[in-house]
Amino acid sequence: MNKTVYFDNAATTFPKPEEVYIFMDKFYREYGVNVGRGQHKLAFTASNLIAETRILLQDLFHCPNKKVVFTHTATEALNIILQGLPIGDNYNIYLSPFEHNAVTRVINYLQSIYKLNIHTLMVDKTTFTYDLEKIKYQFADNKPNIVVVSHASNVCGVVAPIDDICVLSKAYEAINIIDMSQTAGLIDTDLSSDAFDFAVFAGHKTLYGPLGIAGFTCSGKVKLAPLLYGGTGVDSANQSLPETIPERYEVASPNIMAISGLNAALKWIDKVGIKSIFEKEKKNHKRLLEVLRNFDNIRIVSPTNEDTTIGVVSCVFDGYSSDSIGQILTEHDIAVRTGLHCAPSAHQFLGTFPSGTVRFSVSYFNDDSDFEKIQEVLEYIEDNA
Amino acid sequence: MNKTVYFDNAATTFPKPEEVYIFMDKFYREYGVNVGRGQHKLAFTASNLIAETRILLQDLFHCPNKKVVFTHTATEALNIILQGLPIGDNYNIYLSPFEHNAVTRVINYLQSIYKLNIHTLMVDKTTFTYDLEKIKYQFADNKPNIVVVSHASNVCGVVAPIDDICVLSKAYEAINIIDMSQTAGLIDTDLSSDAFDFAVFAGHKTLYGPLGIAGFTCSGKVKLAPLLYGGTGVDSANQSLPETIPERYEVASPNIMAISGLNAALKWIDKVGIKSIFEKEKKNHKRLLEVLRNFDNIRIVSPTNEDTTIGVVSCVFDGYSSDSIGQILTEHDIAVRTGLHCAPSAHQFLGTFPSGTVRFSVSYFNDDSDFEKIQEVLEYIEDNA
Repeated sequence: MNKTVYFDNAATTFPKPEEVYIFMDKFYREYGVNVGRGQHKLAFTASNLIAETRILLQDLFHCPNKKVVFTHTATEALNIILQGLPIGDNYNIYLSPFEHNAVTRVINYLQSIYKLNIHTLMVDKTTFTYDLEKIKYQFADNKPNIVVVSHASNVCGVVAPIDDICVLSKAYEAINIIDMSQTAGLIDTDLSSDAFDFAVFAGHKTLYGPLGIAGFTCSGKVKLAPLLYGGTGVDSANQSLPETIPERYEVASPNIMAISGLNAALKWIDKVGIKSIFEKEKKNHKRLLEVLRNFDNIRIVSPTNEDTTIGVVSCVFDGYSSDSIGQILTEHDIAVRTGLHCAPSAHQFLGTFPSGTVRFSVSYFNDDSDFEKIQEVLEYIEDNA
Repeated sequence: MNKTVYFDNAATTFPKPEEVYIFMDKFYREYGVNVGRGQHKLAFTASNLIAETRILLQDLFHCPNKKVVFTHTATEALNIILQGLPIGDNYNIYLSPFEHNAVTRVINYLQSIYKLNIHTLMVDKTTFTYDLEKIKYQFADNKPNIVVVSHASNVCGVVAPIDDICVLSKAYEAINIIDMSQTAGLIDTDLSSDAFDFAVFAGHKTLYGPLGIAGFTCSGKVKLAPLLYGGTGVDSANQSLPETIPERYEVASPNIMAISGLNAALKWIDKVGIKSIFEKEKKNHKRLLEVLRNFDNIRIVSPTNEDTTIGVVSCVFDGYSSDSIGQILTEHDIAVRTGLHCAPSAHQFLGTFPSGTVRFSVSYFNDDSDFEKIQEVLEYIEDNA
């Protein structure tokens, strides 16, 4: 099989830093045990690694004042938070226009239980900027109870001004939830503010760790009803879950293999520097946009200002469905993602629902040859259209 | 650090077969992508691996007629099933006396919503055998709606006659759930019968795979309300979850790394043969019992008939708490687990609640030197007691 040119980094970054593969294999071979009560030496080492990884995340997010809870996926984290929130009839829930099904499907379920007023945060359809003035009026008209914002869209890369939005909503004592699946480890973000009640991260995306580890930060001020019940290794005689965080939300055996991979990834981010990673990703994003702009048959539906977006670009091709373009790219060993990207509301905003788009997404690891290859294949498509 | 002699296999088997480490590292390096709609070549290979792994599990459990659903942990699987069941006030729920907190804490939560009658399946306190005659009377007196049985206890290794119990309860149209966390891949089990509605497995225990992958088999006849909502890669425009299984219960990115490890583990089980693995584990179990019986200060609270139990043995030591024995063993580089093992009800049955026990558990990989070492250290404890 030919080497695949990989532009599907918004689904999962690939490859990972070499350190991640090496450390994960080594650690799981040497300390691949279960952590819990009555610890033996191997479990003690594994337990220390988990504690260290929480600290590395607190460091990355500048929030020693917040707790770090591990989950297996960002979707699980969002379910634990959204289904666990204190919620009631007539609550005003604000969502960005770009939310993933991991948010909107949970909200849809909650609507089957409560009478909820769902509002969409105002974003300008031309400039793709969050309209803070209008959002201020939205909040004044309908006091926000819960606000959920994707830090960056997984469809078109738009970055939300999370500080401004959360300060505005916090004035009404809203509970704020940030989905950082596409930005944790990429955009240097200070989560120490009380305005951020919950922030969700996915280990396997911009954090460059493996699948199987994700989580959220929380202040502990908002108490969640648990979603999953089970063993916690502590307080086992109690048939309710412990009140302590993270134990309350972390049932079952922790995935020490995936956590070791995330640990190595966080050390790699620290070594390279989050700002250098961001600059490199931006350079690759710019390069991608340059290539795509060479083609008259390609319409970029993402904003094209690389300063207010991350390297996730959605396109439509004249005369072709996104799926058929995906097929041609696959035949030429180029990996992209086509369709709705599990975020139909983002496509409704972009006017690309229900046909979807072809999504190109870069990482730190894309190189010159990748862009040369994509240029070549796009020329082939243009010539044969 | 000295080599640890590992007798904590009921927590997670360690080490794994060499094939598992090698294949997992190789596959994740080469195909560590996200599976979903609009598949490129890497995703196609990853997707095939997932499909093949489901078939290997159907083969192992002799149930081509059942669906295989993947979760991240057996606890998640039990929550999806138990919280998703059609349930109502005055239901009769039967549990074995040996259920883990992954069952009992969920049931405790369900009791906060419904008025449930919780019954314990009759097990003889001397012989540790499930009393099928008495269970028949229990069912006749209080028609079973839901039955949950651990195939083998994680505290004392007792194996339940799941076929007999489930046939008895199925006569009343009960929904039967088997927790095979300690037996999948170890006890050759035919799950094709309609009597088994759900059977849960943990990839990282007796299946010798990695942490991060577990799941359940189901016939699809009992429809579960979903517990987790999110992206499914298919039917994305639908704000409800798809009706199809496994998609309905498998939201978020599948953990292709852990699935690749499970895939290699299942092939290893097939190569060695489940009967050979069982025989080797039984030999190690016997050997462990022989060692423990050499000491007058050790009281084995597990049944000591290795034909009706698996290699999980709970003990108490004269004059010492289980935690202090655990500490001494740790100092001598022996890994065991002490306390309640997240299964307080099993300890209530055994009369070891709340102080708990010292649990020794073997795997296929224990060898002579492990038993020599444990003999040595137990002599040291006896001499210094």
